[in-house]
Amino acid sequence: MLKLRRIAVDTHRENIAYLSRTCGQYHAEEFLALAKVEVIADSHRIQATLNIVDDPVLLGPDELGLSEEAFRLFGRGAGTPVAIAHPRPVDSLEMVRAKIQGRALNAGEYAAVVRDIAALRYSKMEIAAFLVACAGFMTTEEVLHLTRAMAGVGHCLEWDHKLVVDKHCIGGIPGNRTSMIVVPLVMAHGLTIPKTSSRAITSPAGTADTMEVLARVDIGTDEMRAIVEKIGGCLVWGGRVNLSPADDVMITVERPLGIDTREQMVASILSKKLTAGARHLVLDIPVGPTAKVRSHEDAVRLRKLFEYVAGELGLPVEVMITDGSQPIGRGIGPVLEARDVLAVLRNQPDAPADLRDRSLLLAGRIIEADPGVKGGQGIARARTLLETGAGMRAMEQIIEAQGPPPGPPPGNGSPLLEPAGAGYELLAPRDGIVQGIDCLRIARVARMAGAPAFKGAGVDLLKKTGDAVRKGEPLYRIHAALSSDLGFAAELAAQDSGYRFNGTAT
Amino acid sequence: MLKLRRIAVDTHRENIAYLSRTCGQYHAEEFLALAKVEVIADSHRIQATLNIVDDPVLLGPDELGLSEEAFRLFGRGAGTPVAIAHPRPVDSLEMVRAKIQGRALNAGEYAAVVRDIAALRYSKMEIAAFLVACAGFMTTEEVLHLTRAMAGVGHCLEWDHKLVVDKHCIGGIPGNRTSMIVVPLVMAHGLTIPKTSSRAITSPAGTADTMEVLARVDIGTDEMRAIVEKIGGCLVWGGRVNLSPADDVMITVERPLGIDTREQMVASILSKKLTAGARHLVLDIPVGPTAKVRSHEDAVRLRKLFEYVAGELGLPVEVMITDGSQPIGRGIGPVLEARDVLAVLRNQPDAPADLRDRSLLLAGRIIEADPGVKGGQGIARARTLLETGAGMRAMEQIIEAQGPPPGPPPGNGSPLLEPAGAGYELLAPRDGIVQGIDCLRIARVARMAGAPAFKGAGVDLLKKTGDAVRKGEPLYRIHAALSSDLGFAAELAAQDSGYRFNGTAT
Repeated sequence: MLKLRRIAVDTHRENIAYLSRTCGQYHAEEFLALAKVEVIADSHRIQATLNIVDDPVLLGPDELGLSEEAFRLFGRGAGTPVAIAHPRPVDSLEMVRAKIQGRALNAGEYAAVVRDIAALRYSKMEIAAFLVACAGFMTTEEVLHLTRAMAGVGHCLEWDHKLVVDKHCIGGIPGNRTSMIVVPLVMAHGLTIPKTSSRAITSPAGTADTMEVLARVDIGTDEMRAIVEKIGGCLVWGGRVNLSPADDVMITVERPLGIDTREQMVASILSKKLTAGARHLVLDIPVGPTAKVRSHEDAVRLRKLFEYVAGELGLPVEVMITDGSQPIGRGIGPVLEARDVLAVLRNQPDAPADLRDRSLLLAGRIIEADPGVKGGQGIARARTLLETGAGMRAMEQIIEAQGPPPGPPPGNGSPLLEPAGAGYELLAPRDGIVQGIDCLRIARVARMAGAPAFKGAGVDLLKKTGDAVRKGEPLYRIHAALSSDLGFAAELAAQDSGYRFNGTAT
Repeated sequence: MLKLRRIAVDTHRENIAYLSRTCGQYHAEEFLALAKVEVIADSHRIQATLNIVDDPVLLGPDELGLSEEAFRLFGRGAGTPVAIAHPRPVDSLEMVRAKIQGRALNAGEYAAVVRDIAALRYSKMEIAAFLVACAGFMTTEEVLHLTRAMAGVGHCLEWDHKLVVDKHCIGGIPGNRTSMIVVPLVMAHGLTIPKTSSRAITSPAGTADTMEVLARVDIGTDEMRAIVEKIGGCLVWGGRVNLSPADDVMITVERPLGIDTREQMVASILSKKLTAGARHLVLDIPVGPTAKVRSHEDAVRLRKLFEYVAGELGLPVEVMITDGSQPIGRGIGPVLEARDVLAVLRNQPDAPADLRDRSLLLAGRIIEADPGVKGGQGIARARTLLETGAGMRAMEQIIEAQGPPPGPPPGNGSPLLEPAGAGYELLAPRDGIVQGIDCLRIARVARMAGAPAFKGAGVDLLKKTGDAVRKGEPLYRIHAALSSDLGFAAELAAQDSGYRFNGTAT
């Protein structure tokens, strides 16, 4: 038997086992062909990808190491005697092979695959095989099976209230922080809205990053439940709530591979909304030349898939196809976006009108889930709640309930709600009318400037579509905490500002 | 800057970078989204999958670790100051995404993908994505492009001789060690045959494992070339010859995933034969109910694909579709198979006839590549070379040139060419005529008995198809070095012997 040892390495949702090449009891290379081993202590078993160690300081010849998460999942203490064996085949991988060969899988098969993925029984390459096989071909019934399977392994929230509502945007539009306005308005109306959001992965900010400028968002399930029971809503990071553990694992493969299919999107979003206990969902699909969905036709196809799957799952969904031709609001980056959100909630005259109008539209639709509100009256009610300050008061309740945000990360000297640095202005190269703003380009510049790692970094848009611009006028201001970041971002912006004038590229 | 450190972990053809979570210069989690980082020292750059370290003994906050092979590829010493950055996109991954979406790739695109795979620029999940996308759909032209691309990154052997021949079997039939008889016979005839073989991955023995009972096989390119120039042939392990580095990387994903498509098989085999400098190739495709190819129809389809691709590449190929309905010879496992091979080469009366006949058939076809040999006369020439002992003398030349095998691995007490242990006999459960022997089952029993890790372990078949058996007579003998292995193998055999009698399962 080998002695179990915890290897303090975070291998990002993949179980890794470490075995010495000079191990006297097992020929380490024997296990390499299948890449995985099974680690066994009595009735405890775990499968892990094998790494072979050649340094006795890292691992002795009589030791078997497990990476952090694997060690925790295995649940036995350091020093526990363990054996290793060739892994018992993970049965559901047969279904992945069938999918690779082009077969449609049934509900039970998706349940088996998803259960094993959520339990970290798949290596990254096995998850990639499943996702790519699905990307090749999936029936709408399969999307339903996958969604149900993903919800089935999630941590379900249950609410006493009947009117638990939710909203979701498929993303891709910088500055689109409607959730931070919609949630307070819907709460102020009296509906329950337990909103979880993501952090940025490749974008300059997720709603969780921006909300974190104002309040703590790293909140677990129990605390979230207590907050929602008390005040009717929240704006927390979804990463601790564990709504869709299979999705959390799959995303670690989808992102690096750039797999972003309609089918995966629908399964991912709806599985999380189901486990979050939503009884009514409003979905925002922005369409534009640089948005995730590029044509109205694609948006309608996506809408129908959402409606089919949600309908089969008994979740009333309302899909809104919105304008995604440019960023929303002015600020791109956590602090700049939080400033815009507060400007709307405080009814400041300089508040970005597009962010306010989009938020009112969405909040209005959600409010109409209340049987007491007449059809078409939701938006007026939302506007009243905003203008009377009820929305801002609800936001203050959320901030108080969730508590203050953590201190700025090391190296980030910018005070709360202050953009980083003095800012670098990108000037218009010509006179013209702004015809469109490239969402991807602006996001890249803001990211390069340091968002969201530096909360105050990002881009502040000074001109939007339809604005008249004179040569030499600033189009946007880049804020960065580090001068090197500012240089890179300014260089990127100089190559291509992302602005289009009168239909001609600058 | 961080200080470079070698982390003595063999991560099996995947570059891994280790970064401390408490690193003051980089937020390690920032890089997790894309899973990879780029490590930079001056003009040196390498991309690696990121693991985050939480133990200062493993890695200091000012250090950047690289796994063994990555450290070697990076080529800078420990302590070198390095920076890390988000990885520059590997351009060829765009082609993988196109392939996922169902597009046929052209020659240049395959060349780009294969070049990056061979240079370890793909993570395992990215390789899996490419392979699964290819498994979904590939035109015959694409197989040609892939094969050419794989050969293009290989280490090419060039020979002065015109008549460089080669043979290959697609595998799957236990005991099928024809190469060890064909190569000496072809050498004895005077043709050049630089044969490289694989070690077992999931089978009880590869030709390299069995040859290693008689001689050293772990031989590099230069030494192999010298041996072949001197004696006209060799029987070495392909792992050190680096004929198809892209294949070596892809196989580390194909095997665990169980992806075994015709297209990959053709590209893998032909790319290696091209770089080995073969000018004439004989291919053996065994067909049987438990072989890799299950029907004559499938075999013909595979034959045509081989012929098309080899033809376009200017490599004359002769495909032989052979009987794969049972194992070949008697012994399954390195020592037992080596015993059979020597029995044939020594013309012993008890030599397995099927191994001899199959070897003569293949050797005869190869010998006919010699313009001086009349069509149909090759097999007679091969038989003469065998019966006069010229084949055995050529084998002795090979053994002398390659040198003695390494000592037995620790724990393997069996002397050379002696089966391990006294053996456990599996008895016939009934009277009958053997109708067929399950290749997969017999391979599994031999593997469970310890082959090929223990050279003397394996299965010795005492009855073959067509033999009359009486109840209680031994069907085969299981040899194992460890009593636990013997127990597991005997248990497996007791559940299902792999023998079929008169068409009825035992």
